Amino acid sequence: MIPERRFPADPWQVSENDLDLEALAQSESIFALSNGHIGVRGNLDEGDPHGIPGTYLNSFYEVRPLPYAEAGYGFPETGQTVLNVTNGKLIRLLVDDEPLDLRYGCVHEHRRVLDLRAGVLRRSLLWETPAGERVRVRSTRLVSLTQRSILAIRYSVQAVDVPVRVVAQSELVANEEMPSQSNDPRVAAVLEHPLYPVEQFGRGTQAMLMHRTDRSGLRVAAAMDHVVGADTIREMTVHEDWARLTIGAMLEPGERLDLVKIVGYGWSGRRTVPALRDQVEAAVVAAVRTGWEQLVADQKAALDVFWQGADVEIEGDDSLQQAVRFGLFHTFQAGARAERRAIPAKGLTGPGYDGHAFWDTEMFVLPVLTATAPHAAADALMWRHSTLDLARERAATLNLRGACFPWRTIRGQECSGYWPAGTAAMHVNADIAEACERYLRWTHDRDFDRDIALPILLETARLWISLGYVGQDGCWHLDGVTGPDEYSAICDDNVYTNLMAARNLAAAARSARRWPVEAEVLGVTEAEIAAWEGAADRVAVPYDRDRRVHEQARGYTARERWSFEDGQRYPLMLHAPYFDIYRKQVIKQADLLLAMHWCGDAFSDEDKARAFAYYEPLTVRDSSLSACTQAVLAAEVGQLDLALDYTAEAALMDLHDLEHNARDGLHIASLAGTWLAIVAGFGGMRDHGDRLSFRPQLAPGWRRFRFRVRWRGARIEVELAGETVTYTAFETDGEPVGIDHCGRPVRLTEAEPQVRSLQYAKPLTDRPAQPPGRAPNRARSG
Amino acid sequence: MIPERRFPADPWQVSENDLDLEALAQSESIFALSNGHIGVRGNLDEGDPHGIPGTYLNSFYEVRPLPYAEAGYGFPETGQTVLNVTNGKLIRLLVDDEPLDLRYGCVHEHRRVLDLRAGVLRRSLLWETPAGERVRVRSTRLVSLTQRSILAIRYSVQAVDVPVRVVAQSELVANEEMPSQSNDPRVAAVLEHPLYPVEQFGRGTQAMLMHRTDRSGLRVAAAMDHVVGADTIREMTVHEDWARLTIGAMLEPGERLDLVKIVGYGWSGRRTVPALRDQVEAAVVAAVRTGWEQLVADQKAALDVFWQGADVEIEGDDSLQQAVRFGLFHTFQAGARAERRAIPAKGLTGPGYDGHAFWDTEMFVLPVLTATAPHAAADALMWRHSTLDLARERAATLNLRGACFPWRTIRGQECSGYWPAGTAAMHVNADIAEACERYLRWTHDRDFDRDIALPILLETARLWISLGYVGQDGCWHLDGVTGPDEYSAICDDNVYTNLMAARNLAAAARSARRWPVEAEVLGVTEAEIAAWEGAADRVAVPYDRDRRVHEQARGYTARERWSFEDGQRYPLMLHAPYFDIYRKQVIKQADLLLAMHWCGDAFSDEDKARAFAYYEPLTVRDSSLSACTQAVLAAEVGQLDLALDYTAEAALMDLHDLEHNARDGLHIASLAGTWLAIVAGFGGMRDHGDRLSFRPQLAPGWRRFRFRVRWRGARIEVELAGETVTYTAFETDGEPVGIDHCGRPVRLTEAEPQVRSLQYAKPLTDRPAQPPGRAPNRARSG
Repeated sequence: MIPERRFPADPWQVSENDLDLEALAQSESIFALSNGHIGVRGNLDEGDPHGIPGTYLNSFYEVRPLPYAEAGYGFPETGQTVLNVTNGKLIRLLVDDEPLDLRYGCVHEHRRVLDLRAGVLRRSLLWETPAGERVRVRSTRLVSLTQRSILAIRYSVQAVDVPVRVVAQSELVANEEMPSQSNDPRVAAVLEHPLYPVEQFGRGTQAMLMHRTDRSGLRVAAAMDHVVGADTIREMTVHEDWARLTIGAMLEPGERLDLVKIVGYGWSGRRTVPALRDQVEAAVVAAVRTGWEQLVADQKAALDVFWQGADVEIEGDDSLQQAVRFGLFHTFQAGARAERRAIPAKGLTGPGYDGHAFWDTEMFVLPVLTATAPHAAADALMWRHSTLDLARERAATLNLRGACFPWRTIRGQECSGYWPAGTAAMHVNADIAEACERYLRWTHDRDFDRDIALPILLETARLWISLGYVGQDGCWHLDGVTGPDEYSAICDDNVYTNLMAARNLAAAARSARRWPVEAEVLGVTEAEIAAWEGAADRVAVPYDRDRRVHEQARGYTARERWSFEDGQRYPLMLHAPYFDIYRKQVIKQADLLLAMHWCGDAFSDEDKARAFAYYEPLTVRDSSLSACTQAVLAAEVGQLDLALDYTAEAALMDLHDLEHNARDGLHIASLAGTWLAIVAGFGGMRDHGDRLSFRPQLAPGWRRFRFRVRWRGARIEVELAGETVTYTAFETDGEPVGIDHCGRPVRLTEAEPQVRSLQYAKPLTDRPAQPPGRAPNRARSG
Repeated sequence: MIPERRFPADPWQVSENDLDLEALAQSESIFALSNGHIGVRGNLDEGDPHGIPGTYLNSFYEVRPLPYAEAGYGFPETGQTVLNVTNGKLIRLLVDDEPLDLRYGCVHEHRRVLDLRAGVLRRSLLWETPAGERVRVRSTRLVSLTQRSILAIRYSVQAVDVPVRVVAQSELVANEEMPSQSNDPRVAAVLEHPLYPVEQFGRGTQAMLMHRTDRSGLRVAAAMDHVVGADTIREMTVHEDWARLTIGAMLEPGERLDLVKIVGYGWSGRRTVPALRDQVEAAVVAAVRTGWEQLVADQKAALDVFWQGADVEIEGDDSLQQAVRFGLFHTFQAGARAERRAIPAKGLTGPGYDGHAFWDTEMFVLPVLTATAPHAAADALMWRHSTLDLARERAATLNLRGACFPWRTIRGQECSGYWPAGTAAMHVNADIAEACERYLRWTHDRDFDRDIALPILLETARLWISLGYVGQDGCWHLDGVTGPDEYSAICDDNVYTNLMAARNLAAAARSARRWPVEAEVLGVTEAEIAAWEGAADRVAVPYDRDRRVHEQARGYTARERWSFEDGQRYPLMLHAPYFDIYRKQVIKQADLLLAMHWCGDAFSDEDKARAFAYYEPLTVRDSSLSACTQAVLAAEVGQLDLALDYTAEAALMDLHDLEHNARDGLHIASLAGTWLAIVAGFGGMRDHGDRLSFRPQLAPGWRRFRFRVRWRGARIEVELAGETVTYTAFETDGEPVGIDHCGRPVRLTEAEPQVRSLQYAKPLTDRPAQPPGRAPNRARSG
């Protein structure tokens, strides 16, 4: 089905059997390892050649000025940019003085495997030096899910035909030279030499480098130690920006030099130099004591727990089977140990979008983590909670009340330099509120409810009240905001924003009533609660009576439709001015459809079918956040072929580099969205009420389809095969778990799987057409 | 009436009788001299102290990068900034080695007078050195209206009590040190040392400096010569950035050193170094030969002609009498010899707005020049015509057809770095078209009609057709544009823009029919003309039936009204984000009212009265372009008190520094707007059809009011006194001139003045209130 397949379909791994130097940067993103705290791109062990060198620590950033040709009140003056920190994964190799560089000599074999169950990146290569000597190199790399400061590598080199003298140089390198970037605004700003040396240390097989940033005032330390055979020559050299352990050996044919490298990372904006130094050295000592084998075993065990509650099995589509697990793996990696730090749009896989986190986290990533690794979802929301004071300040700057969360940020300050698609996108606040509510629905976590959700819900509700007004028509309106669709900014009554804001207000009211004492401490009055409920009840939802379709925003359907040219080029934003894009009906990414997914109970089946048919020819999908939502709605309205095509597009965004920017990092939200497309789309799973509901359908070509989620401590498994679906609950607390199947209640107990008939949605229209050249990508290439 | 009066009311001059060092920068703008080609701020002869040193040549600029925190398609990458060129007005004085500096010693007298009939700036001072020696200094400065390259100064110094040794240093100085500027976006960018030396020359009393810019590729030359008594010591010194003639003399009490300095300026982006050198030296030689007395006489004669067709006389309001002449003088100065270059928003009086020209020219300045100095209006439009290719390129960049003129520019390229208030303000194109049509109505200039107006009208009509669409309602709509009111950007169906665009289309159709052969050459087809007419006929004009009032834009009156706080601070844009401002009903500057002025025949009297009452409490007048239009409409709807207050605000904008930024240059459009407020407001003059119409009213307190305009070669004079108005025509071609008085035709012949009764409009409502703190400024201070 897919003509060119760099990464062969394999259910539990992503492997590459040839090295494509042109696609090196893309593969570095694909093969990135992370635990949410540390992220390392899949750079080759020996450093050169590379696409983009990348080692990241969550929330370690530098500040940079944001310039404006014409400044305005409230425009942020500084931004934040993720930094490439000290590279600890470097192991260079010399074979009889010839440096291992795959651009020279002859590469007989080169294979890399990302093992999705083991959580390691394996590499194996057979290289012949320009002088004709062959060596086999094997490395395995992991970023530990159990020891969050630790990156570990096992590296071995073996002589093949003749005796060779090998020298391995294991390094820490700060301030790596970075490639120059393109002009695409989604690409990061490059800062040169951003790290200033603070302290260095080296002895035996150990070394440590500490640096600081200039303006953000952060310090980073990287320490390394090695386990290496006693019969080798070793030498440690330390400079300000690098530390190097040189290990030399003579190898007879078949003989190996083996090496384990343990790297510990730490950073802080507060702790002292000695404290930070001690922290990373302790982490390294502990990991060395744990030992390589145990680190590997722990890694597998951590992932086993994850897969148990998260795995999706698809029989009949090997490519999608692989892609959904790849997506789940990276989604999990991005958040697993982020621990009250942001989950950026690219995770920690690349510098794209300056390392910023957006609303993607709450609306695409957290739905998956809430259902599969709820502690990670809670952590991400605790990060938002920890930035409440910054959000309150931002609201005050904007002359608004409550809290206004940033459109894009690393630490919490607004870093958006274009307000029509930044500040105006107020929905981010409702997205965060909804993520809190969702987490509560799925977990019933009372501490979180009281300590985290309550203050977030209250402060965002206050924001909405200060933003909205009751018009002459008696409805509550929100004017001049930008919804998810960034091709129509500064709109009135964007349906998604309005409905999400209304839910935010209603949730705040419920929360305040659940926690009356705590709410009173936060200044909530009965009148305030009544105002929230009143606004939520009267929210405007624009509808075009002539066309019998919801308007994405007030007046939207009356606008001129975009006139697609012959050979129309995409993304539109690089070929047409916002001025023209904003004034016409053309949609970057699912917007009304996103409302119909997450606020699906506010629409009838016919509403959804008609909206899907109306908006489909207008939606150009210039955002990677669109395909998965279109898949969900396509499945709901019975366009199963199309749903599958959209699912494939979301799934293959990075594996097939559909947007040609996987080099800058993975599209974590699209990877997470693959799960949404499959589970909310074909699984028909919704969480609108107090119980999960399902309306599952098998995609064309699928023989069997099984998925599982974690719901309030239990695991629910849903398996489709033939004409039936089987629901099973595991790990329940003894009480049956209530769900809905196609609108009818089902009670699940551990002992008795429940079997029901599949009910397929009947499409209202033929398969709708997309804008020219914008049929779903898998369909295009298939 | 005005409590503090720096410049005493005097009908024909603006004088200052004390030196206020704190207000030096403001006075430099007030006392600026210009002929539209050269502009010199009213800096003191001796240079120090100063507010902002300023010598400008129309369209001499440097290019600077326009940075963006987040760039977008079509955002201009470079801007243009007016440069302070070689200062030729410097004459330093040393009295017994003590430099004349008014911050030291004792200033016994200091008087400056801008003579509005003579067109010169006179200065007289009596200064006592720190050592106790008194000298009297007199200078007279002019920028010639008859020899456009020439600045001339007569300077004299006289010993008073004791013999003194005086040394005058007459200089040319390039790259003057500039004061650092504020963060206000309306203030210019400062470029340091923007001029690179090319060539210098000096001999005897003559010198010349030539410089070039770095990026804009322009060269500027300044030459000087002097007429000075033979019995003086003279020495010329020339360096790269300065040339200095030192003149020394011993003066007995009563004895004078007299000096005439002639400075010639020239610049070019094309001509060679020798050509430019020769040009400025020839200009100086010619002016020296003309001689000071004749230069002064010619200046007076040129202004006599102007005043004959432009003067406004008001008996009963000395302050306004002075202000309207001050405004006319500066309006004339700004455009008199601009000769196919732009007329910037600040004229050539200061660096504000980077020296850019905006739509102000066409809609505020050119209406005055068209009626009083039509050749200057033609010149300004010929400049627009000369930039048609740039405007075509800009339209193509924006994927539009025809020509799209820049929102702000010096040379013609778009320099706006914030598109919602730049590119989106498409009305500038209709404004230019209307200025062409207006000029044609007033002059019947056939060459202009064919060569200038036709191509501008056609290309702007093409732009509008590519911008608009016919909606389901059968009307022709323009969505997503910004009207004059910059507090509600990116609107649909802005009434002003729609009506002006419709007029543009209709005018293009008429023009194409008048010039069928020429139009065909420009590719115009019958179908295209029909499309223009069709769109013009069906233009949407949003009206709120519930409130019975026109909407500034579609849906405007349904929006939330701005909630004014206690102690609301202005301008709003410096205290609230655009995000909040755009989404609410709050108006920076007259917008619908501007439509009701210039497209007044599209509205009934009741429409105007109701709109005036509705929009008045929403209009904060954070733009200097607002008060004059509010005055015009206030007069039309019978709010004469209010009209007078608005007229005074427009008139005193700079003389009273009402916006606290006169330092950066005069508000030429507001100065011109004073004339509009008086002539279109109280004079009730309109030019909607083929004849002028009047509905004159005397303002409260005025005893007599007379104004005159040039109409198709004739001069029409309108004089109000008591209960009557007297119309007289002069310089007619023998045929009677037809006008309307209060809707009834009147025929004017040279011989017989026509007397009619005044008819006062009856107000529909009480005097409407303005936003808190925003009553018209004269009313506030009175």
